Amino acid sequence: MHQTFNATANPAQGPARLAQLRETLDAQGLAGFVIPRADAHQGEYVAARDERLQWLTGFTGSAGFCIVLPDIAGVFIDGRYRTQVKTQVDLAHFTPVAWPEVKPGPWIVDHLAQGTIGFDPWLHTAEEIETLEKTLKDTAITLCPTTNLVDKIWPDQPEAPLGKAFIHPDALAGRTSADKRATLAADLRKAGQTAMIITLPDSLCWLLNIRGADVPRNPILHGFAILHDDARLTLFAEPEKFDDETRAHLGPQVEIRPPTAFIPALHTLQGAVRVDRTTAPLAVSRELTEARVDSVWGEDLCRLPKACKTDAEIAATRTAHLRDGAAMVEFLCWLDDQAPKGGLTEIDVVTALEGFRRATNQLHDISFDTICGSGPHGAIMHYRVTDSSNRAVTPGELLLVDSGAQYVDGTTDITRTMAIGPPPKTGPDGAAAAYTRVLQGMIAISRVRWPRGLAGRDLDPLARYPLWLAGMDFDHGTGHGVGAFLSVHEGPQRISKVSDVPLQPGMILSNEPGYYREGAFGIRLENLIVVTPAPKLGDDRDQLCFETLTFVPLDRRLIDATMLSVGEREWLDAYHAEVAAKLAPRVSDTAKLWLATATAPL
Amino acid sequence: MHQTFNATANPAQGPARLAQLRETLDAQGLAGFVIPRADAHQGEYVAARDERLQWLTGFTGSAGFCIVLPDIAGVFIDGRYRTQVKTQVDLAHFTPVAWPEVKPGPWIVDHLAQGTIGFDPWLHTAEEIETLEKTLKDTAITLCPTTNLVDKIWPDQPEAPLGKAFIHPDALAGRTSADKRATLAADLRKAGQTAMIITLPDSLCWLLNIRGADVPRNPILHGFAILHDDARLTLFAEPEKFDDETRAHLGPQVEIRPPTAFIPALHTLQGAVRVDRTTAPLAVSRELTEARVDSVWGEDLCRLPKACKTDAEIAATRTAHLRDGAAMVEFLCWLDDQAPKGGLTEIDVVTALEGFRRATNQLHDISFDTICGSGPHGAIMHYRVTDSSNRAVTPGELLLVDSGAQYVDGTTDITRTMAIGPPPKTGPDGAAAAYTRVLQGMIAISRVRWPRGLAGRDLDPLARYPLWLAGMDFDHGTGHGVGAFLSVHEGPQRISKVSDVPLQPGMILSNEPGYYREGAFGIRLENLIVVTPAPKLGDDRDQLCFETLTFVPLDRRLIDATMLSVGEREWLDAYHAEVAAKLAPRVSDTAKLWLATATAPL
Repeated sequence: MHQTFNATANPAQGPARLAQLRETLDAQGLAGFVIPRADAHQGEYVAARDERLQWLTGFTGSAGFCIVLPDIAGVFIDGRYRTQVKTQVDLAHFTPVAWPEVKPGPWIVDHLAQGTIGFDPWLHTAEEIETLEKTLKDTAITLCPTTNLVDKIWPDQPEAPLGKAFIHPDALAGRTSADKRATLAADLRKAGQTAMIITLPDSLCWLLNIRGADVPRNPILHGFAILHDDARLTLFAEPEKFDDETRAHLGPQVEIRPPTAFIPALHTLQGAVRVDRTTAPLAVSRELTEARVDSVWGEDLCRLPKACKTDAEIAATRTAHLRDGAAMVEFLCWLDDQAPKGGLTEIDVVTALEGFRRATNQLHDISFDTICGSGPHGAIMHYRVTDSSNRAVTPGELLLVDSGAQYVDGTTDITRTMAIGPPPKTGPDGAAAAYTRVLQGMIAISRVRWPRGLAGRDLDPLARYPLWLAGMDFDHGTGHGVGAFLSVHEGPQRISKVSDVPLQPGMILSNEPGYYREGAFGIRLENLIVVTPAPKLGDDRDQLCFETLTFVPLDRRLIDATMLSVGEREWLDAYHAEVAAKLAPRVSDTAKLWLATATAPL
Repeated sequence: MHQTFNATANPAQGPARLAQLRETLDAQGLAGFVIPRADAHQGEYVAARDERLQWLTGFTGSAGFCIVLPDIAGVFIDGRYRTQVKTQVDLAHFTPVAWPEVKPGPWIVDHLAQGTIGFDPWLHTAEEIETLEKTLKDTAITLCPTTNLVDKIWPDQPEAPLGKAFIHPDALAGRTSADKRATLAADLRKAGQTAMIITLPDSLCWLLNIRGADVPRNPILHGFAILHDDARLTLFAEPEKFDDETRAHLGPQVEIRPPTAFIPALHTLQGAVRVDRTTAPLAVSRELTEARVDSVWGEDLCRLPKACKTDAEIAATRTAHLRDGAAMVEFLCWLDDQAPKGGLTEIDVVTALEGFRRATNQLHDISFDTICGSGPHGAIMHYRVTDSSNRAVTPGELLLVDSGAQYVDGTTDITRTMAIGPPPKTGPDGAAAAYTRVLQGMIAISRVRWPRGLAGRDLDPLARYPLWLAGMDFDHGTGHGVGAFLSVHEGPQRISKVSDVPLQPGMILSNEPGYYREGAFGIRLENLIVVTPAPKLGDDRDQLCFETLTFVPLDRRLIDATMLSVGEREWLDAYHAEVAAKLAPRVSDTAKLWLATATAPL
């Protein structure tokens, strides 16, 4: 079982650790210190040694940071964690701060007259620190990079992970690493740059056609790299992570050196060196400056080609989605049989779902901890069930299940919301009306064709329009980028009001509008989709469209068919027909019967 | 009659004038000269003396510019004028250039090795010249402001207009000029600025609650102004434009001085002076620099409050729209009676429509030359009928009529597309299907409620989605800002993929999706709408919505009702019911009968 349900937070230890940190600060002449939940690779999942925020405060959320000052220690958490933080930290010593509504700069100024605040430059990007520094301009407060003072007082801090790297076959990647490196090296030469620093693990894994095992959920390798303009690459990662086979796959143009060699290597660089200010740790550009190397800000050149999947990656991902869809159908069939009887809990559901995925014999990992919210828990957008929060799956309520898998041929991410037993009350205010509006938004994105050149921002309103009309909305993006057996959240592609990145063929995204009624229910429907040139139609304009990758029934019992347009209804019936055709041959006889009913035309 | 139909272009005179201009350039040591269709106020309509482009080249379009070089004279025109330009200029001497696809900078570099190109700094903004200069960097070509060399060789150039200014009553404006000036002066003081230069006539008219008569169609006054941070204003305009009554209305805080006093006055300013680099002539900032006055770039402070109409302006505009709607209904009733018999031409239609508006006895002007395109002419987006282009209004075809009026209580702009006699063939490729998709886009904008803070860019896709789905689109924005008895095209509000200006209550916009099939037909449907807080609904989120201002039937004979969703159909029927209720009491008995049929539920 990949997922666990114990909440490891222990508020009791925080105060003593905080006191010890303040002593250390005093000794260093510092007035404060910043502790982010971050590692040097800006990853969503961090290794145990990087769980500094949790160790210090008790807070286990996946995002946030603590700013320790002499008289206050603020734990900055976003909307998802406002309730959770209160149960996980000692509120006499730690103060939750509603972020990003409250910005760290003004908060510091409110609580500190003057002094120096330390931070670990490996855990913050240049952009982050510059933004914070701007807000402290014209005050008597300064920021100063230091060694990590939490590491100093954490006696049993775990070691850095040593997960084994492994080959991601060229056949699945669709391009060799040599080809990718040659293309990027040409880009560097064209830009007059001699090298690029790579700090993002998924960039590294994509570029080298390898995967790793340094953190859960994301099959990534922790390491840094320097790509030279002649296509050679120096990889700074623990040599013991690489067996002979992987070394042979990397080839003679890739040199593996220990992480300790990274900083000295920066000092040997010459010419203009490309660094991504939005993702690279500040420490990297500081070292380059110290070494008098000419560092130039520029986006990590791996990000865009990594986002635009090759035909081979898309084909493999399609296969992964059919396998995952079949497991989902077995799961939904089981759920429909068991849940209406009562007695199931959220943890039972999560466990069963992982079991169905495991039964494929090809589950590498789940792609994130399953979100399984029954009734009012569905309204908590990033709910992760624990032993203490575990709730019964209750007939007459909704159940929201957001889950995914890592298979070597692709990463999946799917959300379905189901009626448990008889659907909740109908009417314009009811769950079915809300479900139908969310579905309409999802269908709008599924059907859209648009002129090449538009960004996710331009499509985002289409997913919200049916909700807006009823005075409703959802407070998250419509879609995030998804990797090919890589991170389930990858950039730069998004469907979001803040995304100006033009959508390009091959980009995989989620399509996941939702609706959340606090204390009552949550609805989210999510398919993965891939950008593709649109087939000829009408005036034969240059349009792009989405191909849907996810094939799993949507709960027909929650759809108010009278609200759908002819086109929406046709899409849904065609989708369900395709689900049935693709999955019936792949599921058990019991599931086949369930599938036929679940995919019947409206 | 306001509109005329004679095409004044005379290609024959161009070559001699061009030769004379080149002689003048030689004498000045210049290699070239830029002749924009522009005045010092960046207006859409220019006075006769500013029709330099037309005088030199023969081209009469409403936008474009000519760059004269030793061996070539390029006439830069956008997509609207590609055909027209060929009939209006002598192609042996003038070369049409497809702009903005071809940019002036690279074009100049292609046709000139080195030398200095002159331009009149009163006719270009600072931003324009900077953009052009950037593209000439690293070449041996420079730009140099000079006197206007066309004016030098234009013997009978008309004088500057001397239209009388007149009072725009405070009751219609909803705020006194003193109040507006006090607010803006406070904004200046807050920004640490001592004065703002105003060069846009609609800003000036809005700020002073006056109107003018210096150009056709837009009731604006040509002039410059300096607003001081104590709310005093110096207005530079011909004193004879102002009668005693208008002077009294302007009050003692507004000093009128002749235009010749403007430059000397710039030299007397002290402190930081605000100039809008996107709208002020480059000459203004050059003079300030020469006078060592500290000029600061900043948006014209009138633009946003002018765009956000007061309750009084909105109420007055509603009245204007009902009057205009009644005239339109009389017109459509007449058209439906006459046109199917055959024998009408486009000019007959334009003339009749102006007649119906004139019959209200309140027509100040039309708000632009009516676009009346029969059959294939409908596909020419900015078609303006002339004696030579005039075409029969033919039964079995579509007729597109885009028109508007200036009344002292409001500016209107409306487009309807009608079937003349029996509607053209149906089917997914037919005019009715296209009409219905355009209508669906218009309805989507009419119905939308959106979270406060979004810009026109965020709503634009909603108007196109029904067309996109069929591989169709339209190559213009969905909506432009509209003034209150001011310019029919005003900024900064727009519904367009290039508009990041957040929509705010009180902004009036057009809602005008279209579809154009070259050589066959054009469809455009346009209502004016005003942004307003949305009534409470659903989760009571802070949403804005549009109130529709235009009430005129949409041609039911062209609607394929099977394509509409329940919501779209309900909107249309409700709209038509409102049209009938509002207009029936305002039209003739004949028109009343027609109206009842035209507004019947689908």
